[in-house]
Amino acid sequence: VRNFKLTLQYDGTHFHGWQKQPNVRTVSGVLECAIEKLSKERVKLIGASRTDKGVHAYGQVANFHSRCKIPLEKFPLALNSLLPHDLVVKDVECVRDDFHARFSAISRHYRYVILNHRERSPFQSNYSLWIPYSLDFERMMEGAKYLIGCHDFTAFSSSLSEDRNPYRTIKSISLKKEGECINLDVVSDSFLPGMIRRIAGTLIRVGCGKIQPGGVYEILTSRDRSLAGPAVQPHGLYLVEVEYP
Amino acid sequence: VRNFKLTLQYDGTHFHGWQKQPNVRTVSGVLECAIEKLSKERVKLIGASRTDKGVHAYGQVANFHSRCKIPLEKFPLALNSLLPHDLVVKDVECVRDDFHARFSAISRHYRYVILNHRERSPFQSNYSLWIPYSLDFERMMEGAKYLIGCHDFTAFSSSLSEDRNPYRTIKSISLKKEGECINLDVVSDSFLPGMIRRIAGTLIRVGCGKIQPGGVYEILTSRDRSLAGPAVQPHGLYLVEVEYP
Repeated sequence: VRNFKLTLQYDGTHFHGWQKQPNVRTVSGVLECAIEKLSKERVKLIGASRTDKGVHAYGQVANFHSRCKIPLEKFPLALNSLLPHDLVVKDVECVRDDFHARFSAISRHYRYVILNHRERSPFQSNYSLWIPYSLDFERMMEGAKYLIGCHDFTAFSSSLSEDRNPYRTIKSISLKKEGECINLDVVSDSFLPGMIRRIAGTLIRVGCGKIQPGGVYEILTSRDRSLAGPAVQPHGLYLVEVEYP
Repeated sequence: VRNFKLTLQYDGTHFHGWQKQPNVRTVSGVLECAIEKLSKERVKLIGASRTDKGVHAYGQVANFHSRCKIPLEKFPLALNSLLPHDLVVKDVECVRDDFHARFSAISRHYRYVILNHRERSPFQSNYSLWIPYSLDFERMMEGAKYLIGCHDFTAFSSSLSEDRNPYRTIKSISLKKEGECINLDVVSDSFLPGMIRRIAGTLIRVGCGKIQPGGVYEILTSRDRSLAGPAVQPHGLYLVEVEYP
């Protein structure tokens, strides 16, 4: 039995997210089905991050255990030939038996893409959030800095069950202009549900002047969900990379 | 009655091309419907180029005559609010009464995008043609040069009716690398049906060594459709710009 580690890219537009569900097209559902065709046995796929419906990935990671005898070097081509156009396996490795795509991960890097331009683009509607009014980039950066470090991120999460640990450690957060887009890059040990989309929604409010940069700190320490900006749409979000020790 | 000139962008993925047809979603069908809602009268839209199903546009041009009283400066915003995400009006002007989007055009600029990389990209499948084997860029440029000027382009067209003029004047043709893509840009007075996609298919054969660069000249002068490369898929094609006097 080998433990296979996959690195994946997908356009999330036509997937109902990562997690397998009956009767809908999900990334892990489509992928498991292709792996089972190839390996001729049932597999249980473990994903590093359960991306939501519409969220894209440049570097999602998954693993599964299999007795499949296919040589490792033939695996990517064979698997990709069974996958649809919006899902690609970039890399396949054999890893230690105790490697777990989700629990072994030490950090996740997500990007939120904002198209900050007066006119919308017909090519960007599934790949970024369109904000037609001008955003103050400097203010957004100033506000973003308050989020770095280990904090209780309750204010930036969807409703959590009582027993869930609300502490997360943001290792880095940056904003970069790329053409007409603003890329918000956040690296954290892990993320609470809805966390990046609420951080993005809050920083957009900072950028348009509705919240002071220092208000981000107040929202964070308040642990009050009603003070943060709304979770922005999933189609601007990308899982860029997952890091392992 | 004013003559309105529109400049349009669209993602062609989910359109059955430009030309209005019953029971399918076409660019001119969707656009006419939105204009009629706004102007409260029937309009007849004239497009510069009848793009095929799957073909995209950065700068399609269309015109229509209307008694509509809406101030010109309010037109783009009002119209865009009625249009779907994959179709955007970039500009609206009032032009001379005898302006005709198709017949007044003096040149069209099309781009064909080839993703020339070992691995396919899930984000590019509707926006470029994936060629995994390496293309010889120099050879392709050498072959492309034979097409510049006024020629009978029968060999590079879909079947033409007997009475159709097969002469076209290619004003410029260029190949540029952009990241992992090769952009083939062609400017011509106008194009025969299938012409750019057959030129692209032929140059790809030159790039992978199946045809000598000089073979492009032989194909051109043969006027024999069976010698040219096949028409490549429409999803790599973009109408970039239409020029008027």
